[in-house]
Formats: sequence, C-alpha cells, structure tokens
Amino acid sequence: MTQKIIINEVGPRDGLQNQSKLLSIDERLQLIRALVEANVDHIEVGAFVSPKAVPAMAGTDEVLQSLRGESENFSVLIPNQRGYELARQAGAKTVAMVLYASEGMAVKNVGMTKLRAEQDAEAILQCAKADGINVVATVSVAFECPFDGPTDPMIVFEAANKFLDLGVDNLVIADTIGAANPAQVAALMNRLVARNGAGKLTCHFHDTRALGMANVYAAVEAGIRRFDASISGLGGCPFAPGASGNIATEDAVMMLHAMGFETGIDLHRLMVASDLAETLTGAAPGSRAKAWLKPHLLKRAVA
Amino acid sequence: MTQKIIINEVGPRDGLQNQSKLLSIDERLQLIRALVEANVDHIEVGAFVSPKAVPAMAGTDEVLQSLRGESENFSVLIPNQRGYELARQAGAKTVAMVLYASEGMAVKNVGMTKLRAEQDAEAILQCAKADGINVVATVSVAFECPFDGPTDPMIVFEAANKFLDLGVDNLVIADTIGAANPAQVAALMNRLVARNGAGKLTCHFHDTRALGMANVYAAVEAGIRRFDASISGLGGCPFAPGASGNIATEDAVMMLHAMGFETGIDLHRLMVASDLAETLTGAAPGSRAKAWLKPHLLKRAVA
Repeated sequence: MTQKIIINEVGPRDGLQNQSKLLSIDERLQLIRALVEANVDHIEVGAFVSPKAVPAMAGTDEVLQSLRGESENFSVLIPNQRGYELARQAGAKTVAMVLYASEGMAVKNVGMTKLRAEQDAEAILQCAKADGINVVATVSVAFECPFDGPTDPMIVFEAANKFLDLGVDNLVIADTIGAANPAQVAALMNRLVARNGAGKLTCHFHDTRALGMANVYAAVEAGIRRFDASISGLGGCPFAPGASGNIATEDAVMMLHAMGFETGIDLHRLMVASDLAETLTGAAPGSRAKAWLKPHLLKRAVA
Repeated sequence: MTQKIIINEVGPRDGLQNQSKLLSIDERLQLIRALVEANVDHIEVGAFVSPKAVPAMAGTDEVLQSLRGESENFSVLIPNQRGYELARQAGAKTVAMVLYASEGMAVKNVGMTKLRAEQDAEAILQCAKADGINVVATVSVAFECPFDGPTDPMIVFEAANKFLDLGVDNLVIADTIGAANPAQVAALMNRLVARNGAGKLTCHFHDTRALGMANVYAAVEAGIRRFDASISGLGGCPFAPGASGNIATEDAVMMLHAMGFETGIDLHRLMVASDLAETLTGAAPGSRAKAWLKPHLLKRAVA
C-alpha cells in the first residue's frame, strides 16, 4: 500500500518574505492558486507581522479573505498574541507560531527570552483551542543557531514534547539555517517519533549546505510523513549569503514519488507554479531537480 | 573511534572529459597537484582512450609520467585491452574498467554486447593480476540506463559479486545518470554488503536529480566507506542537458565531516582546488555547499 506524505508549501510566506522583490496581493494569490492547481493543499499563505518590518506580508488579511473557505489547511504565521488576534479576525483556520531552541534567536527575532516566547506561545495555544483554530508550532534553530552555535538536542526534544502534550495540531522541527546533517536528523527524529508517534511531526529543512534531500530521506526513514518545502526553493537564508534556501518543493516531491510515496501533487502542474514563482519574484531557479525534471516531464507528455 | 571514508576524486578524468573546454597537460597536472595539496590521495588522473573520440584525455601517458611514484592510488580509465596495454606501458599502478548493467549502454559506449564487454573485462583482470596492477571495476547504469530504462538490481548484484569473486580490488556501483533514489541505494547496497562486506565497495553518484547527498547518506548507512566524487561537481551528464553532474567532492566531504567521519581531506585547501577547477574549465560552480562553506572557512581561519 502506497504511503502518503504531506507537503506543507511555505513559499508564499517563508519564501516570499526572504525575496528582495515585493509581490502585490494579486501576485501572491496567483502563486497560491497555481500551487492549488497542482494539488498542493497545505500552504502557508501569509503572516500577520508588522508590515513595516516585513512589507512582503502586508495585506495577508486580504489574501485570507480571497481564499476563504478554500482549505482548512491554509495557515498563516503569527509572531505574537496581536498577530493571533488579527489572524482570527481575518478568519484563519490554522495559525503557525514559532518557538526558539536558542536564546540568541529568540532575542534577535522577537526581542524576548526563549522562555517568555514559550509562555506567549502557550497562551496563544489556549486561545486558539477555545476559538477552534488549529495550531502548528515550529521549533526553530533546532540543530544550530547562527548566534549561539550548535543546539542541544535535549532542548528541542523537551520543547517539542511539551507542546505536543499541550495539544498543538502539528509540531515542526526546523533546521532554520540548513546546518543539520542526516545523522543528526535521524537521531533526533527517531527519539521524537518513539515518544510521540509521527502523526503530528513535520520536518523543515534548508538546502544551505546541500543536505536538504539527505535530511528529508533521514527523516522519512525515521517515520516522518510531513515536510515543509518551498516552491522553486524560494527563501534564501539571511545568515548565509549566496547559499540556497528552503528545500524546493519540486526536489522533495520528485524524490518522494521516486521512492514510492504519494503526495497527491501533480508534478506537471508544479512546474507551472515553479515557473510562475520564478517569473514573479525574479529569483534564480532554486530547484536543483528542475533542470532534469521539466524536459523529462515534457518528453513523457509528448510520448 | 572516528571512522574513515575514502574519497576517490574523479574530476581530472570523469569531470574534465565532460567539459567543453580542453585543458592542457600542464593544467591537468596543476589540478591534480592542487587536489593532492588538499590531501586527496585517491584520484582518477586520466584515461587511455582514443584521443580522437575523447581529446580531453589525450596525453594521459605524460600525466602519468609526471606523477610517477606519487601514489599507488592514482588510477586511469581503460576501455579495453588496448587501453590496458597503454596504461601498463605508462606505468599505471591502478586501472579502472567499466562493466555495463544494460545492453543499450554497452552498445552505445563501446560498441559491444554487455556479455562481450564483461568477457573482455575478465581477460584484462587476469592480465592485471599477472602484472601486479590493481583493478577497479565500475558497474555503470546500475540503477537506470538512458536507453533501456530502469535496471534490474539482480543484474547489478550478480555482476558485482562475480567480479569481486574474480578478485577486483574495488567494485564501484555507479548511478551513471543520477537516477537512483536513496531507498533503492539502501536496498542494493545492503544486499551487496551482506554478501561481500563493504571493504571493496564504492558508490558513484550524480546530482542530476538533486539526490546525490541523499544517496551518499543511504550508502553510508548501508556501510559503504568509499565514494567517487568530482571537484566542483565537474562532469555534467550528456543525457540530461542543464542538469548537474557528478556529486561535488566539496559537498561530500563537508557532509561526511559533519557526520563525524574522517576523510583526511583539508577543506580549506579543497576550496583552492575547487576555485582552480572552475578557473581552468570555466565551468559554473558545481558544489552546492561551497557558497556556504567558503566564507564559513575563511571566517574560522580569521577568528
């Protein structure tokens, strides 16, 4: 029996937020709809963050309005209680919040201690439960922090367990700067799966050091069946100039299909979304598999 | 205890042979010496093939002469008995020969049947044993052939076992067109290691579909401790225009070091060799890790 793997597309948020070119709301919706056309049904569609700090995400309420009713699985990032309120008012069905495995990243990203950020996240989770809104929590810098260095896996293990016990709908282990190697991924994910099962776990990898697909494979071997990925690898990494960013949805889907997994995603139409992502953002192609994949798919379509 | 992994550098042969720019013998030697400076001690330094068919490898006898006595582990590719004779006369200590897991590739590459190519290889192996020359045999298109499609793993398993039993010093399982996925690699290499041990097995991967490092990791997990790799990913794949080629030595070494393995290779000096490879060939940087790795190494050197 074919096993299913869920791809949670983060290009329209994590991706666009790290591109130099700002997209209009219409362009953001175009990209999201192209992904939906390719049967991508889990999508991070925007963020309720300060439009001054992150202009790329301004107008996420309008994006959500336009997509209203289309999917339970469209999520929006919220950095704090205020973001949560805005998301709720805009009709968000799923919110994504960030936990920090290091002090350095917590201070740099949200100007608070790791503990305080965790307490805020707990409070938001309680509100969301009362409001019937799904919560995805991401443990960021789960392998290494650009400020504090290597992360103690025990910190990640305990934070993940705690929020799973508190009832988050999904818990994402994020290698925010693309520092993890597959042996580390296997070790951590095996432990997390042994305690919690794999049902509510996601992995989020970057390709910064060329190990994105190796890390996905290691996580799959550990039982993980849900991954964040970004169309055309949109995203970059502000801490590693010139390095590639999020793993590309195209690469992940191609590998998983080759391994016999089902994602439900149509690779032909994913190429259309990928081309659109590159056209809209002006970003260089970020999928390494695409140079092979696109002509190959065309050949099959003709044959 | 740290485990050792051998990197067999194939850039000066497999790499250069697939670049549009022809290097002079001096330039080829420069590249080889830069690799030696970085402590790369297994290197495929050339090929005794028709200089008309493969002008990039003309003068390999001169290359070997210049390197004479430097390493037992410098190898040269030989396509047939005539190539073997030339290699022997030039003082080669190790020859590399190619077996075919598909009829299509054998016919296309050497104009003979798979069986005939195997018989020739057997005859060469007997000569080499008598002459005290080491033999590396590569099973090409071990996962998929661009002409015949997916390869039956049993064909690869049996060819590998046969030549290991016949006494080759090393047997390379080569994903010639970068079609393998890590689940396939794990399945095949686990079987081969179970029967033969890992001591004489090498894996050769391409990054064509972005899965090079994932396949290396899968092979490492199966116990493989020797890999072919090409500096700056030189190599390309004639059957997948625009796609990347051999896995980059930089990527493989960085991942293996991160996982705690020893290769003996100096990453700082490998960057020098990598820059040189790009300057000499004019090829675009083919290591995906380098954009992160190079500034990171410089920072550490300064700190």
